[in-house]
Amino acid sequence: MPVYNAPTRDTRFIVNEVLRLDSYGNLPGFENATPDMTDAIIAEAGRFVSEVIAPINLSGDREGCTRHPDGTVTTPAGFKEAYRQYVEGGWGTLSAPAAYGGQDLPHVMGFIMELYLASANQAFAMYPGLANGAISAIRAKGSPEQQALYLPRMISGEWLGTMNLTEPHCGTDLGLIRTRAEPQADGSYAITGTKIFISAGDHDLTDNIIHLVLAKTPGAPESSKGISLFIVPKIIVNPDGSLGERNAVTVGAIEEKMGIHANATCVMNYDGAKGWMVGEENKGLAAMFIMMNAARLGVGMQGLAQAEVAYQNGLAYAIDRRQGRALTGPAEPEQKADPIIVHPDVRRMLMDAKTFIEGMRALCLWGALQVDLIHKAATEEERQAADDLISLLTPVIKGYGTDMGYKIATDMQQVWGGHGYIVENGMDQFVRDARIAMIYEGTNGVQAMDLAGRKLAQNGGRAVQRLFALIDAECAEPSDDATVRLVAERLGKCCGEMKAATMWFMQNAMVNPNQLGAGAYAYMTLTGIVSLGLMWLRMAKVASAALASGGADAAFYEAKLTCARHWATRATVDAGALRRQVEAGSETIMALTPEQFAIA
Amino acid sequence: MPVYNAPTRDTRFIVNEVLRLDSYGNLPGFENATPDMTDAIIAEAGRFVSEVIAPINLSGDREGCTRHPDGTVTTPAGFKEAYRQYVEGGWGTLSAPAAYGGQDLPHVMGFIMELYLASANQAFAMYPGLANGAISAIRAKGSPEQQALYLPRMISGEWLGTMNLTEPHCGTDLGLIRTRAEPQADGSYAITGTKIFISAGDHDLTDNIIHLVLAKTPGAPESSKGISLFIVPKIIVNPDGSLGERNAVTVGAIEEKMGIHANATCVMNYDGAKGWMVGEENKGLAAMFIMMNAARLGVGMQGLAQAEVAYQNGLAYAIDRRQGRALTGPAEPEQKADPIIVHPDVRRMLMDAKTFIEGMRALCLWGALQVDLIHKAATEEERQAADDLISLLTPVIKGYGTDMGYKIATDMQQVWGGHGYIVENGMDQFVRDARIAMIYEGTNGVQAMDLAGRKLAQNGGRAVQRLFALIDAECAEPSDDATVRLVAERLGKCCGEMKAATMWFMQNAMVNPNQLGAGAYAYMTLTGIVSLGLMWLRMAKVASAALASGGADAAFYEAKLTCARHWATRATVDAGALRRQVEAGSETIMALTPEQFAIA
Repeated sequence: MPVYNAPTRDTRFIVNEVLRLDSYGNLPGFENATPDMTDAIIAEAGRFVSEVIAPINLSGDREGCTRHPDGTVTTPAGFKEAYRQYVEGGWGTLSAPAAYGGQDLPHVMGFIMELYLASANQAFAMYPGLANGAISAIRAKGSPEQQALYLPRMISGEWLGTMNLTEPHCGTDLGLIRTRAEPQADGSYAITGTKIFISAGDHDLTDNIIHLVLAKTPGAPESSKGISLFIVPKIIVNPDGSLGERNAVTVGAIEEKMGIHANATCVMNYDGAKGWMVGEENKGLAAMFIMMNAARLGVGMQGLAQAEVAYQNGLAYAIDRRQGRALTGPAEPEQKADPIIVHPDVRRMLMDAKTFIEGMRALCLWGALQVDLIHKAATEEERQAADDLISLLTPVIKGYGTDMGYKIATDMQQVWGGHGYIVENGMDQFVRDARIAMIYEGTNGVQAMDLAGRKLAQNGGRAVQRLFALIDAECAEPSDDATVRLVAERLGKCCGEMKAATMWFMQNAMVNPNQLGAGAYAYMTLTGIVSLGLMWLRMAKVASAALASGGADAAFYEAKLTCARHWATRATVDAGALRRQVEAGSETIMALTPEQFAIA
Repeated sequence: MPVYNAPTRDTRFIVNEVLRLDSYGNLPGFENATPDMTDAIIAEAGRFVSEVIAPINLSGDREGCTRHPDGTVTTPAGFKEAYRQYVEGGWGTLSAPAAYGGQDLPHVMGFIMELYLASANQAFAMYPGLANGAISAIRAKGSPEQQALYLPRMISGEWLGTMNLTEPHCGTDLGLIRTRAEPQADGSYAITGTKIFISAGDHDLTDNIIHLVLAKTPGAPESSKGISLFIVPKIIVNPDGSLGERNAVTVGAIEEKMGIHANATCVMNYDGAKGWMVGEENKGLAAMFIMMNAARLGVGMQGLAQAEVAYQNGLAYAIDRRQGRALTGPAEPEQKADPIIVHPDVRRMLMDAKTFIEGMRALCLWGALQVDLIHKAATEEERQAADDLISLLTPVIKGYGTDMGYKIATDMQQVWGGHGYIVENGMDQFVRDARIAMIYEGTNGVQAMDLAGRKLAQNGGRAVQRLFALIDAECAEPSDDATVRLVAERLGKCCGEMKAATMWFMQNAMVNPNQLGAGAYAYMTLTGIVSLGLMWLRMAKVASAALASGGADAAFYEAKLTCARHWATRATVDAGALRRQVEAGSETIMALTPEQFAIA
């Protein structure tokens, strides 16, 4: 069975040494996040996830969820008990506000838990993960009564929640939705329509499920400007908080999918179900984007998470499996063959994986810190900077993070050779589960357009200029360490390619927006490389200083510098190619007619 | 249900206009391959495969193969009847020698059929596909008696065959095999051991299955120099050709795999089974490589084949699905949304796919022509050139072809968004089936080492120099057509990068072979890009001439030129990055200890 050990050592490195969480102790919510406290949470989270959640990942994939003849849905063996322990441990409340029973710790701590959960068992992690999106929307747009009625029990995990956006004929283009909301005399709405692809749509983990549903009120505009958001509980919650009647929402079917089998992806039928509007009429899209942005960071972390667990299992096999001999002569002549970790091409895949994983982990946790700083940083300038940076990089974390997650899960399956293709070894599950993250919460192509078509131009390009300034400043710092200088030099070059690509968009996309659409994906990948480079430069500086100070754990810091060099010499080489892809423009892409595409 | 239309128009373009098969009419076996004849075969093959083989692809994936309590194995519904029609149509005999009942046509024709079959139904295609490997080995190394006894009925398809190499502890490193072959008084051997991952290991398609099995005779050397090859029929064939006793070979289990569910991947138990040696004792590896080289080209074609069928279905969805509006304003304002083929990022994926597919199809069929020319070309120089080129490019067709096949199957699933993740739509099957091609018949990492570590250095680098000379000559030809000039210029630059990478290996790998191992994969990919570029240059020249001549089908030839430009401006940009990856060398790749890799 696959293994998973939460990467606690590296997490502590990021939290304590790279992000220096303790240096924010003057900000609200950070005062309790001392290294002692965060180290203890990281250790305990790692233990819980590795011991309780990881062991039901493969079995959950094999068994899947079941819709019974009476319409009820059950999760695979062990899920209900594991979820009970998750709630009991208060694991969903780490970064939630104290006002609703949360622990009020920085978002970094909640992200760490999400990350560990998604590595151990992505299908399981999605149950609380989707609820987080629903919680965000109610926190941002719900009335005080709605917040009081729903949030405490959603945050504690007593109830879970879902996001109901997609319909059979509409996914990305939510203006097309047909689900109707008829106003009722009591101030509620009767919701009628069919939603598909609803993750965690029904299950046996909680007594109630709070569905957030996009629908159109009578006479609403046809476009996405006519969408409203509704709370539709599975069991209606009485004003005193007690559970009332079963609502008219049922599961039509569970979809049979390529992966994440242990999460119930449901067709949801709303037949005049009772719902309550969240926020203003026809302003549902804005509320939905609040859910979505939180969810997109979460999905980006799923990419990283699957890369991490796949890497651990790829590495274990590379150390265990013996086949062939080192190119430089037998490494273990007393054995009939060497472990395959002697082979450079196996090591190439492992190093590419390790370098992505450690860089992306730093980027995700740095992103979580920005989420806090948006509200909590001392100055308006710092708050705006945090908002600019995380808004810009959310589609990159989602898009680049999940592309790479899938690539690395595939590479790690490759390390296993034929045995990686056999279901019982679990390597194919990582690939199949990682695959969905490139699709949901907006396909990665949609992320690319969000970045290049929306985030780049906002406020006159302020966010991307901020990123460039940050990188230029980091690269300009002098260093005695050859690795740090190498990383700075290569990052500077990558950033130069990104600047050139940005300039090309500015000069060409106004005239013809297809020039932007054609290059957006390459631009997103380029931004991903640059963002990880910034993290590698910071990590190299920290590791270099730690080694210079002669402290403990030299092997760890030396490995960091090796990884930084690997990133600098290997990942950066694509930057120029990506810039040239942007500059190739849209001519060949837009030229063919559908009929010419179809000639076979 | 997914569609498949065999790409007959483009196949005829390659056969008649690019390869000009009729210009080889003076060579044995080519005299019958007139355009009339080959066009008719292509049309009929396409019809048969699209109508008979494609419709049982998705259902075969869902049902899989079954091992019954009595140890027999059955294929999914419809497979037996489809195979009967395949045999009746003589489809396996196209390129087989007349001496054994074949039609003696050039290999190009057999390859076309293999390609169509693998697009329509990879799991089905593997049944005759594996038999082809076994046939090759018996043709090359079998005694005249063995050839007479087995080949006619294997070529007709009355019997199928398998290749038994892998054991639980040994895949790539065949020197480790433990299966024993004890000589018997009657000249046969008693074969005992367990083989795993045996594709088409048992089934109900034919009355007999001819297993080719690697085993060790008593006292054989421990390394791969101690391996012999044996024919082990499922039902023993009497010298008069009648079927005798059931042999002591049984199916221990059918593996549960990520994909190719409709092909029975068997654990085979040999318990003193009767076998007959093929070729010389301890020379089994050479015979095995004959099977393997044929199989590697076949597997490379599987990558292309899955890309092709995935592309057809991605395209169909992009034309059908409406979501959002063109960036330049509504394309179909009377509809509520435009078809997603208006979006540049969707078109980017379709164009990348189309460009790979058409270039790779040309490369594979050009490769098939070389297979004929090795034996049939008029001069020794031409025969040697063909052998050099196809030996060099076999690992590239396998490695690069299947990497890209998987990438494109993934991209086409991406075009489908969430619906691509739903099993009943069939897009995920293309990804899961394409995945195995990167692994079997030698992982793509093994292909990279075969190319960079073996083929490159053979005969003082003669093969790669031949490829360079070919490309230089093609690029140097003057042209009035701007597209042809563009492709030539970019191909020349790519080829320059490949020359530089080759030079770097020559200068660095002798001192430290890990420098070769670390860069081999990037080198393989670079060679793939260059090889496809050569095909695109040739195709661009043909298309340009056809348009200049003012003949029919201008839309087809114009699309060719657009695709050529797309290749030239987009695929080539990676060449420099790959060269720099080679030059990055092995330092960071070889540096970490297993313990450092494992720190989490």
